[in-house]
Amino acid sequence: MNNYKTIGIIGGMGPLATYDLAEKILDNTVASCDQDNIPVLIDCNTRIADRTAAILHGGADPRPEMKKSAKRLEEAGADVLIIACNTAHYFYDSVCEDISIPVLHMPRLTAQRLLDMGVKKAGVLATDGTCESGVYGNALEEEGIEPVYPSAEKQKIIMSLIYDHVKAGIMDFSDLDIDGVLAEMQEKGAEALILGCTELPMAFDIIGDTPVPVVDPTEVLARAAVSFAGAPLKNRQK
Amino acid sequence: MNNYKTIGIIGGMGPLATYDLAEKILDNTVASCDQDNIPVLIDCNTRIADRTAAILHGGADPRPEMKKSAKRLEEAGADVLIIACNTAHYFYDSVCEDISIPVLHMPRLTAQRLLDMGVKKAGVLATDGTCESGVYGNALEEEGIEPVYPSAEKQKIIMSLIYDHVKAGIMDFSDLDIDGVLAEMQEKGAEALILGCTELPMAFDIIGDTPVPVVDPTEVLARAAVSFAGAPLKNRQK
Repeated sequence: MNNYKTIGIIGGMGPLATYDLAEKILDNTVASCDQDNIPVLIDCNTRIADRTAAILHGGADPRPEMKKSAKRLEEAGADVLIIACNTAHYFYDSVCEDISIPVLHMPRLTAQRLLDMGVKKAGVLATDGTCESGVYGNALEEEGIEPVYPSAEKQKIIMSLIYDHVKAGIMDFSDLDIDGVLAEMQEKGAEALILGCTELPMAFDIIGDTPVPVVDPTEVLARAAVSFAGAPLKNRQK
Repeated sequence: MNNYKTIGIIGGMGPLATYDLAEKILDNTVASCDQDNIPVLIDCNTRIADRTAAILHGGADPRPEMKKSAKRLEEAGADVLIIACNTAHYFYDSVCEDISIPVLHMPRLTAQRLLDMGVKKAGVLATDGTCESGVYGNALEEEGIEPVYPSAEKQKIIMSLIYDHVKAGIMDFSDLDIDGVLAEMQEKGAEALILGCTELPMAFDIIGDTPVPVVDPTEVLARAAVSFAGAPLKNRQK
């Protein structure tokens, strides 16, 4: 029986991305049997309203259900929380409001990772909500890194990749000009691309090699959670 | 916002199998956005002791932690529980003891599925604990289906596949004579093979086509849970 801290995941935004984050915790933990792994509690709360719709279009407020999940996980025994959605970090302060356990911050951890890599200019691939709300812009600027965003036309391709494909379970992207998006980011001087939506690492696993290196915030967050839990961390794979 | 019932998963036995079951709930639900999916609570409780070791070799008792998980999930709001481990169904009555919500029974649901398929003789591929404890044997005999087990020699190959490979994160099985196991089951007259350990469907996704059709209890359980939750069920893929 291990003595690791219990990680709580506020999930459901979307559900597949939630399990992708949970699996990255496994992938990054040194373990040779079930009991070597970190205890994890997951609230795949599909009642949380769409974050981008709330931030940009006056959609239903996702905060009440996010706060319920945070409280539920704390009461169930979580020692630390992580949020399996980049856009949701816009509501980070609300999530922390009623609980007394720490919540790791995915965009800030990602900005610190880019700083360690020596990146001065980072491309942000994310939802409209994440881009326009400054969830990554602010985190990057705090570390002195300049954020670069796709043009309006290319941003539509990223939104379709997230919503019409991954969230809808359609993993064939041949109708989307992903190469065009990547070429534009390179032209704009991005030295690394942040896959700043939890659906994007799953898409880019299929897309494969890119002209500019990508950073996966889900993996950065998973590794920070493994360290926090006190489990031995595997060597970084990419 | 959906009105589906909340599914609770008693997991951690092993962790990867837990997320595989959770993803099969997604795969079997008709959904086109996050909010179309069923709310799911997961307790990936890696403090649960090894089930086979407890049943056969006097190992630590897994029941106290399994019961804690059941209670925790009920208190967090689960309406129905599922157990992401076949062997753990040996302790099914203990899990149900202190809670008032139903717990679906994976081996019994699988036996009913085999009955629907017209199978009279089913091969059981599972841990020593599952085979020797009669977890599947009893469920099959209740439906009038005869269970068939691998020889001691072939059973060692299945145990190595489960423990030394999937549970240890090693997904290359080229050192194991899986074909020999399958040939033996066919010779013994098995009309279908039960992948009666939650690690096996993941292994057989990689192994590919088999001479005798396989039934995946994880998928059977996921589909039963989707129906129980009240969500629209996708057509069966296999």
